[in-house]
Amino acid sequence: MSVTFAKGFSAAGVSAGISSVEGKKDLALVVNNGPLDAAAGVFTPNRFCAAPVQWSRKAVADGHITAVILNSGGANACTGQAGYEQSKTTAETVAGLVGADTNNVAVCSTGLIGELLPLDHVLAGAKSAYEALSDSEQAGEDASHAIMTTDTKPKTVALEGTGYRIGGMVKGSGMIAPQLATMLCVITTDAVVTAGQMQAALAAGTEMSFNRIDVDGCMSTNDTVLLLASGASGVEPDPDEFNALVAKACASLARQIIGDGEGASHDVRITVTGATSEDAALACARAVAASNLLKCAIAGNDPNWGRIVSSLGTVPVDVAPYDSNKVTVDVNGVRICENGGAGRDRSEVDMTPREVHIDIDLNAGDAQATVWTDDLTHEYVHINADYES
Amino acid sequence: MSVTFAKGFSAAGVSAGISSVEGKKDLALVVNNGPLDAAAGVFTPNRFCAAPVQWSRKAVADGHITAVILNSGGANACTGQAGYEQSKTTAETVAGLVGADTNNVAVCSTGLIGELLPLDHVLAGAKSAYEALSDSEQAGEDASHAIMTTDTKPKTVALEGTGYRIGGMVKGSGMIAPQLATMLCVITTDAVVTAGQMQAALAAGTEMSFNRIDVDGCMSTNDTVLLLASGASGVEPDPDEFNALVAKACASLARQIIGDGEGASHDVRITVTGATSEDAALACARAVAASNLLKCAIAGNDPNWGRIVSSLGTVPVDVAPYDSNKVTVDVNGVRICENGGAGRDRSEVDMTPREVHIDIDLNAGDAQATVWTDDLTHEYVHINADYES
Repeated sequence: MSVTFAKGFSAAGVSAGISSVEGKKDLALVVNNGPLDAAAGVFTPNRFCAAPVQWSRKAVADGHITAVILNSGGANACTGQAGYEQSKTTAETVAGLVGADTNNVAVCSTGLIGELLPLDHVLAGAKSAYEALSDSEQAGEDASHAIMTTDTKPKTVALEGTGYRIGGMVKGSGMIAPQLATMLCVITTDAVVTAGQMQAALAAGTEMSFNRIDVDGCMSTNDTVLLLASGASGVEPDPDEFNALVAKACASLARQIIGDGEGASHDVRITVTGATSEDAALACARAVAASNLLKCAIAGNDPNWGRIVSSLGTVPVDVAPYDSNKVTVDVNGVRICENGGAGRDRSEVDMTPREVHIDIDLNAGDAQATVWTDDLTHEYVHINADYES
Repeated sequence: MSVTFAKGFSAAGVSAGISSVEGKKDLALVVNNGPLDAAAGVFTPNRFCAAPVQWSRKAVADGHITAVILNSGGANACTGQAGYEQSKTTAETVAGLVGADTNNVAVCSTGLIGELLPLDHVLAGAKSAYEALSDSEQAGEDASHAIMTTDTKPKTVALEGTGYRIGGMVKGSGMIAPQLATMLCVITTDAVVTAGQMQAALAAGTEMSFNRIDVDGCMSTNDTVLLLASGASGVEPDPDEFNALVAKACASLARQIIGDGEGASHDVRITVTGATSEDAALACARAVAASNLLKCAIAGNDPNWGRIVSSLGTVPVDVAPYDSNKVTVDVNGVRICENGGAGRDRSEVDMTPREVHIDIDLNAGDAQATVWTDDLTHEYVHINADYES
């Protein structure tokens, strides 16, 4: 259903000849037909952030976005002033097509870093996409296909609120790290909400979803999450329900990224409980999620708790106070580490399901946090040794 | 030449039936025959540090070590009080054999975490090793073989000072992270030096070597570096020369670990110059060394500078101030990134040599730092998906 599930939005996904994959849809356009044009955004903190991120961060700052143009096939990152001019020209072209202010057009790009885009293809593609705009289900799906790179499937969400809707799409598969991910995400709603309300909902939702997944520890230059509101439902939502639904949309899309992690054969949920604070729990969960050795073990269906506790042990005591002799670890419900030592035999753990649950109890407090990651497989190495991105 | 290169040391390496590999040498003994028994040590900061680390840290605290017993085939980590008793009993047995104080015997273990050692095999092996003790070159080599796990070759060093010698051996291949590595290292010298002098030399040498290599970002529970002095040369060394030689020994052994990194096909030197401080340079070098995406690209002979700068961009500005538009990156001498953007074409870079040199100039100051890492290959995943450690 994607971005056209919410009323007041039209979209398109076309093949513009940007991607090196012949005939692949590589350019998406999402237009907010109003009556509102409220918007919020969250962007990568990477200091080498791409030109479209620099452009879009400014564009969304006033809380108004009319249209978003997104391309795969090139990141337009580390391309200097020339790259920035490309993003600006792209926004100007879209603004002219849809009749918007240039500063109300966001631009997103994903693909190889360090090269300029084939701008003539982008601008011609924008025109094709404009002509293909539709509020149909198919149009939303086309857009979600057009932003894919190493993704093996489109990732979308559609949620019903009380009298209003939230839809969305995301791309992302590798270069997925705690601070967002190599991901472009557009979430739409027909609720009647203010930009400030949306920014708060999006920041909170992102923190608990996209900021808590980690495929490979690598932070991208292009991460962008946009939330657009058309107000077309005419419904002012209950704020708590709206916040919860935005968070749910983010969580669903983030979970789909993990489910499609490059080369992954397992999706791994790491929950740390019994921490003295949420930050402490999160630091521990992130340390475990970052362990290449553990991720390889999981790829080999080995519930190697030694690699779990040795990762836990790298978190400084001032960040996460706990007694290593009181830590327990359950993998898929089997307590294989008890009081910091061996528990039940690892052979009791069934590692065949796609989802692996690692539950760590620090027994030091009441706080908890959850992080999702993938295992590390031959296929991940293959994709990233041979794919230029 | 290993640990017996310095006068006053005897060693042995025997097969004690600890390792699951039938007939593999898995137990080493190094004895300091004096006249001095001065010693210094550096250990893993991991909070789940192994029983032998807990034991040896106490043993070396007074600056005296007469003998070191080391085993592969089991880490004796996360084994609680029973594990600690195993290390203590092992030390007592060795002390009885060599006629030393139990508190002057260090114990080192490496292998699978979470299981007790087959103690009868360890103690019987200690007796065999004691009977095999010799100051021959072969005995030193036997010891360096006995500590290997996934290492494909023994790693030793032999350096001549002015009238004295330094020898050493190390094991380590995976679970190699910035704060030491999964490594056991024994360095010997026949110089006449004090324990305090040795500790300072070892701490400095370790900081610039073992703490600046990173195979897979994983910190071990068992890392131990010991420096033993027999004084058998009768020579009091020039302190600067001694410090430099200890540092050189550490650097040589650390470099050999990188050269034997699990599954590695390239050894990667990352040097960051033009930083505002050494800490800033080090943070940047470590961030680049930790990038799985870059390490996969190097495995595929792709000098992917986008993955270099996107890793640099994750270092917070308060840690390493620099202007992303002024950064240059050379790979094997070719400036492929200039002023934060594309430089010469990546096709000009010859990636076929085993050694890859990445030189990053932040153009922000005069400080620099170097970190070594390996690439990330199919073979690394294979080793760590299938090997229990």
